[in-house]
Amino acid sequence: MPQLRLALNQIDSHVGDIAANADSVVHWTRHSAEQGAHLAAFPEMMLTGYPVEDLALRGSFVEASRSALSALAGRLADEGLGELPVVVGYLDRSERATPRLGLPAGSPENAAAVLHRGEVVLRFAKHHLPNYGVFDEFRYFVPGDTQPVVRVRGVDVALAICEDLWQEGGRVPATRSAGAGLLISVNASPYERNKDDVRLELVRKRAREAGCTLAYLAMIGGQDDLVFDGDSIVVGADGEVIARAPQFSEGCVLVDLDLPAARPDAPEGVVDDGLRIDRVVLSEEPVEPYEPVAAGGGGAERLDDDEEVYDALVVGLRAYVRKNGFRSVLIGLSGGIDSALVAAIACDAVGAQNVYGVSMPSKYSSEHSRTDAAELARRTGLNFRSVSIEPMFDAYTGSVTLTGLAEENLQSRLRGTLLMALSNQEGHIVLAPGNKSELAVGYSTLYGDSVGAYGPIKDVYKSDVFRLARYRNRAAEERGETPPIPENSIAKPPSAELRPGQVDTDSLPDYPVLDAVLALYVDRDQGLEEIVAAGFDRGLVARTLRMVDAAEYKRRQYPPGTKISAKGFGKDRRLPVTNGWREQA
Amino acid sequence: MPQLRLALNQIDSHVGDIAANADSVVHWTRHSAEQGAHLAAFPEMMLTGYPVEDLALRGSFVEASRSALSALAGRLADEGLGELPVVVGYLDRSERATPRLGLPAGSPENAAAVLHRGEVVLRFAKHHLPNYGVFDEFRYFVPGDTQPVVRVRGVDVALAICEDLWQEGGRVPATRSAGAGLLISVNASPYERNKDDVRLELVRKRAREAGCTLAYLAMIGGQDDLVFDGDSIVVGADGEVIARAPQFSEGCVLVDLDLPAARPDAPEGVVDDGLRIDRVVLSEEPVEPYEPVAAGGGGAERLDDDEEVYDALVVGLRAYVRKNGFRSVLIGLSGGIDSALVAAIACDAVGAQNVYGVSMPSKYSSEHSRTDAAELARRTGLNFRSVSIEPMFDAYTGSVTLTGLAEENLQSRLRGTLLMALSNQEGHIVLAPGNKSELAVGYSTLYGDSVGAYGPIKDVYKSDVFRLARYRNRAAEERGETPPIPENSIAKPPSAELRPGQVDTDSLPDYPVLDAVLALYVDRDQGLEEIVAAGFDRGLVARTLRMVDAAEYKRRQYPPGTKISAKGFGKDRRLPVTNGWREQA
Repeated sequence: MPQLRLALNQIDSHVGDIAANADSVVHWTRHSAEQGAHLAAFPEMMLTGYPVEDLALRGSFVEASRSALSALAGRLADEGLGELPVVVGYLDRSERATPRLGLPAGSPENAAAVLHRGEVVLRFAKHHLPNYGVFDEFRYFVPGDTQPVVRVRGVDVALAICEDLWQEGGRVPATRSAGAGLLISVNASPYERNKDDVRLELVRKRAREAGCTLAYLAMIGGQDDLVFDGDSIVVGADGEVIARAPQFSEGCVLVDLDLPAARPDAPEGVVDDGLRIDRVVLSEEPVEPYEPVAAGGGGAERLDDDEEVYDALVVGLRAYVRKNGFRSVLIGLSGGIDSALVAAIACDAVGAQNVYGVSMPSKYSSEHSRTDAAELARRTGLNFRSVSIEPMFDAYTGSVTLTGLAEENLQSRLRGTLLMALSNQEGHIVLAPGNKSELAVGYSTLYGDSVGAYGPIKDVYKSDVFRLARYRNRAAEERGETPPIPENSIAKPPSAELRPGQVDTDSLPDYPVLDAVLALYVDRDQGLEEIVAAGFDRGLVARTLRMVDAAEYKRRQYPPGTKISAKGFGKDRRLPVTNGWREQA
Repeated sequence: MPQLRLALNQIDSHVGDIAANADSVVHWTRHSAEQGAHLAAFPEMMLTGYPVEDLALRGSFVEASRSALSALAGRLADEGLGELPVVVGYLDRSERATPRLGLPAGSPENAAAVLHRGEVVLRFAKHHLPNYGVFDEFRYFVPGDTQPVVRVRGVDVALAICEDLWQEGGRVPATRSAGAGLLISVNASPYERNKDDVRLELVRKRAREAGCTLAYLAMIGGQDDLVFDGDSIVVGADGEVIARAPQFSEGCVLVDLDLPAARPDAPEGVVDDGLRIDRVVLSEEPVEPYEPVAAGGGGAERLDDDEEVYDALVVGLRAYVRKNGFRSVLIGLSGGIDSALVAAIACDAVGAQNVYGVSMPSKYSSEHSRTDAAELARRTGLNFRSVSIEPMFDAYTGSVTLTGLAEENLQSRLRGTLLMALSNQEGHIVLAPGNKSELAVGYSTLYGDSVGAYGPIKDVYKSDVFRLARYRNRAAEERGETPPIPENSIAKPPSAELRPGQVDTDSLPDYPVLDAVLALYVDRDQGLEEIVAAGFDRGLVARTLRMVDAAEYKRRQYPPGTKISAKGFGKDRRLPVTNGWREQA
């Protein structure tokens, strides 16, 4: 059987920054060539970044992507890398689609191409377009209608893009019909908790259906709400895992494969789902037999659940800060667990020397709110200062009469305004500390604690906030480091400290119960009756659902934050603001 | 030819408030019956409101809609209205669709039904699903595959829903194939500038294609970003207009039609686009000949462009305030034209007695900023007060060092915080005064002048702000009323007054030029080269585009506001926040 050394480049890209993305492709193609690869691949829409959203509808952007692709092919050849075939995702447009209402303007395609010897030798577009969850691809793309097969060193390699594997039919059976010896799928598959297990089973199933080895190349990094966790996988035609890349780790996965030689009677024409086989022969001669190297990411260990989520939050935040051109972050430190966890994540993402914390006590702040914040700073080494909001509070209450909720919210907004003033003055990006539980029920102040460009834990329930804080401290202990989060921040009862003696449980159910109800209502779309049937008190459920239904406007105004669950408070959850529906009516 | 009196109920509905929507249907069905109608129709998704967005994926909501439909049929009969067939839009689910990845969970349908004698006698779902602009219907619905035809008093009436008319094929040719004598399309078609002309031509064209009279029933009112302008239309098979309802006016359009009798050989089976004819016969006997009444909205005059846009802004704001359960609004009054126009719109929407204005001068505020605001209050009769932000400003600058932009933004944020404090204390909804030009280029302060639950003019360019202010004053003069907006607010050079002597043109091109460039870049998706080719200075265009590209994060945090253009800053414009693309690179 012919051999082939495959270089799966599990790397990041930045939406819109085509020049930097092209540089990355050149860098990693050189690396792949130096490692002796015979075929190199890059993720879905590598050249433009993913997801491009409305940029797909902008003609100048589509043209920039097309030109960049041709230029990249030329540049690779100029730099002596033209002999190595490269599969790379980009944004194209269909020349065949007829413009009509209902199709996206300009007929954009989520495309990939094969580059070889200075030329773009093959182009194709994603066939199955996802339009659920975080995906809106019917809005942006027209589907591809070919089954690309490229012959490399005597092996027929079929190609596919992401959703082509997730939905039934299309390119998986077409790969079998085309008699290919290898199927490469390039992906930008967003992270969700436990998705790695689902993905592995999917890849194994599709390999068996395609009847050949399947290489699943994943993207890594973060783009706005989305995190890409890597986890590239290669499985044999029997579904056995050949190689698996580490999670959250950028790099080139090298794998040596023994693959069937291309069939002399290779099929042509239209096969499954109307896909027309589009063949290109780059090289017929098999590689001289060689000694396989160990697969680069071969048996990479899976992270446990807490570590995986924590790493996702770190990767997401780091990407957001860098891609927005910031070097430092600013956090209001209340001494509570939310801001402490956000600070710990931030120190891991951008380094403690680039993290600025501010304690902003009011007359209702407890002594421990100040000492716990200072202790956090001491443990992590972040930059710390304290600014009282009492003079600002007195200035407002001296001018207008404020009581109750108005007085409580004022304190939170004075802190938001102070953070933004320091951000403007010193150039840090502000992080919002809100967690998913309080955002869900609206237990937060708009323009107050919601202030920030990014909410690192906005998709993390409070129960998970506790777990992640304990995990991070435990991990530090295991490495012989100082645990970053003060024990008192974890142990004390959560409080907003906006009036004397206030604790969260004055307004909310206990967090374990609240979070369990929220998970059913928000993440799993269950109704009141189903949740009650699951064993929760009807009154408590009704009260919780009423709070969630009423909080939509606040959530809309929240900053983005790393999405880790099936229904984060991000782009995959869309409700009308003036929503008269009350689940418990 | 048989006669038929049609009642097209051009009314509003509220997303989620199924009980109130059902009450409306009963109310207007009674009115239709009292007017002697033989068939009554209600808009698309009348029972649930439109658009329901993610509520479509919530099983309990779908079931609530289905139950409400059956209950409505029973209630109409109980109240003596069962003999009048009623066409009403609602949310259903397909019993036939097989669950699979890529289809919305629960297979929801954008459906409509015919109610008669206490029963739901016919159900069907929208066939063409729009997924562009403000629409995401591939995300939420599965398409219908029948061509419904209901026989009423001897006339075959084909039915369709909104997009079924906009896209080619499907129910328009199927209506002809089915030999129907009338096609009724029920709609929730969002307003855009000049869309009425497009809609009229479409309806005329489709009537000719269908080969029969076409009744196009539109929704009226507002839901979040969307405004529904009414403009129901009835045209003959030759494309001639029979009746046209007034814009922005709720009511029942009655029209008497002479229609062909149902064919004895009425076709059955599958016709165009795979649609299967689904016939129900309610009554064969034609109506006794009667004297037609004048068509209710017959030749309603079209509004001119300024009046149309102004009315859209009023209707949108009124709906947002009411549907969110507020009775009064709060506006920061700077003496400038933006807040003055917002105040005028608010007075027209909810009455001057429910409008609260606050002047919030700082040390940089000019004398005219106070006097112009007070003059606006005097002219309109809104509630007015003045609160200086100087003590709050001094409290901040006494605690932390702030210069330049940080000091400018602080003033704006102090005002935002003051407005929110008064809102919390007194229960008004805050309106944000930002216009589309300044939002586009980021000439605004996040958590400052962007504070508010709704931005009435966020989709109005500054040039149009001037036009609308002049229009509103002129309209007042024509009615012998006091023009609401002080002439000085219109005439003086726009300024943020955040530093001494500041005017907008320090930072921005002149508004007529800026707005012309923005219209090409934002609304029409043109690129740098196309805009330069249209006659604009390259440097100015590059600078403008750079500002727009950099302002995406601010725009995302803005409140909703009435959408009046093809690309408003609302749900129809979606860009990645960490967007590295720079059009002028």
